[in-house]
Amino acid sequence: LDRELGARVFFKCENQQKVGAFKCRGAVNAVLSLSDEEASRGIGGHSSGNHAAALAYAAAIRGIPCTVVMPETAMAIKVDAVRGYGAEIVFCPEGERASTAKRVIEDKGAIFIHPFQDPRVIAGQGTAALELVEDVPDLDMVAVPVGGGGLAAGTCIAVHGLRPSAQILAAEPLAVDDAHRSMATGVLQPRVEKPQTLADGLLTGIGELNFQVFQEHGLRVITVTEEQIVEAARFHLQRMKILVEPSGATVLAALRSLGSKLQGKRIGAILSGGNTDLSWWEN
Amino acid sequence: LDRELGARVFFKCENQQKVGAFKCRGAVNAVLSLSDEEASRGIGGHSSGNHAAALAYAAAIRGIPCTVVMPETAMAIKVDAVRGYGAEIVFCPEGERASTAKRVIEDKGAIFIHPFQDPRVIAGQGTAALELVEDVPDLDMVAVPVGGGGLAAGTCIAVHGLRPSAQILAAEPLAVDDAHRSMATGVLQPRVEKPQTLADGLLTGIGELNFQVFQEHGLRVITVTEEQIVEAARFHLQRMKILVEPSGATVLAALRSLGSKLQGKRIGAILSGGNTDLSWWEN
Repeated sequence: LDRELGARVFFKCENQQKVGAFKCRGAVNAVLSLSDEEASRGIGGHSSGNHAAALAYAAAIRGIPCTVVMPETAMAIKVDAVRGYGAEIVFCPEGERASTAKRVIEDKGAIFIHPFQDPRVIAGQGTAALELVEDVPDLDMVAVPVGGGGLAAGTCIAVHGLRPSAQILAAEPLAVDDAHRSMATGVLQPRVEKPQTLADGLLTGIGELNFQVFQEHGLRVITVTEEQIVEAARFHLQRMKILVEPSGATVLAALRSLGSKLQGKRIGAILSGGNTDLSWWEN
Repeated sequence: LDRELGARVFFKCENQQKVGAFKCRGAVNAVLSLSDEEASRGIGGHSSGNHAAALAYAAAIRGIPCTVVMPETAMAIKVDAVRGYGAEIVFCPEGERASTAKRVIEDKGAIFIHPFQDPRVIAGQGTAALELVEDVPDLDMVAVPVGGGGLAAGTCIAVHGLRPSAQILAAEPLAVDDAHRSMATGVLQPRVEKPQTLADGLLTGIGELNFQVFQEHGLRVITVTEEQIVEAARFHLQRMKILVEPSGATVLAALRSLGSKLQGKRIGAILSGGNTDLSWWEN
């Protein structure tokens, strides 16, 4: 890959993180930040997958109750993971996640933890980039996927805190290009409705808080096609022998689309997760 | 996995080795052991896959010619890998590999390197276990797959040199159980003809030299079924997010089949390679 890009690429393999994704960093940081009184009330949230498992994992670490609202369409493998950590699951129709979560969590008096619009969550997600920059201090560039923007915002803050000269790239599926359009226009764009992309971790629009961070840090967004995402996921699997979910494979797809512009650069690339049913794989 | 087995398992990930398998260790050691006169004649061998790529890689390192005889049925991905390292390929019918290689290599005056019946190759393969034992010195047990036996023999020698008390386990597909029967009877058994197993790196019978090593070191062979192999390969991919070829997944399959007998043990497990077309994967 280094030869192909004429660059040096250092991967941060969050696909091999607990719960199979960086999401556990934000959830753990949020849950461990709670006061004892808050923690005793338990936590809750809504998610179709990785954030749900992350909350369940974080709650199990602190030994407090956790309730997660999941859409009825959530993948069985992700439901099992949440259940495996001992969380209670409430199912709802796909469009009613937020309202159901509000009601269920208020009823229980639990603390709601948002998947990406929460400074504690953003700070937690930023620790992936923090570790990467500590390991490889002289990076010219750090690339991450962008969905809601918690990981990308945490990455901006962590990287520029230690290495102000590094450029931050965010990879976004073309089918959900609200971050790209928001940065291009300088105005937060509404989320894309029912986007069709394999990158099921990046379906949501970016949060307002994260958009502010992106503007302060001059985030550069690169959009990638579904074909480029599959090509990158296949490369990770066949050549690197690691399983990266399509959302995470957007990063390699974005780097490849920049091609010779990366010549001579030292690049950090955050592979966000590895939870996928491999539906994109064809022999 | 540690919880499931009641043990601590340390994986040596040779699936992430150069050429995607431990085979490059033996080939590189053999090629770098040649005198300048020998090296100038070039090297050759026959293989359907990993050994072919390993020879090509080793020859490229030393900058000498390499000729590999491959069966016409070899997977395209493996043929491409060999070609990518710049080796010359001669194709032949599946049953005529050894005779074709003998003729072709004699014609060229090249040095023949056997995939597993060569002390330099065995020593090279043993360096995987050597590194593992250096990293984790207090292992009770080291598990490897067994096909021709080069990796298993090198592992016996390397592990017992540093850690005489450790037991060596070899995992073998039930469909190719010549190592198991050889150790049980104390007499080298003939190879299984046309074995039906997904573990395409373990089709060959064990070599006589390796059988002697196994007897000296009290190797214990555990046979595993095809279902157990697939189950283990799926675990590596889904839970560990790494791609392990069926031949390498025999090791986890064997450990799982021992179940509670591993209680409290510290176990090294050599995942031999990651070159597979995933034909065994089903969603």
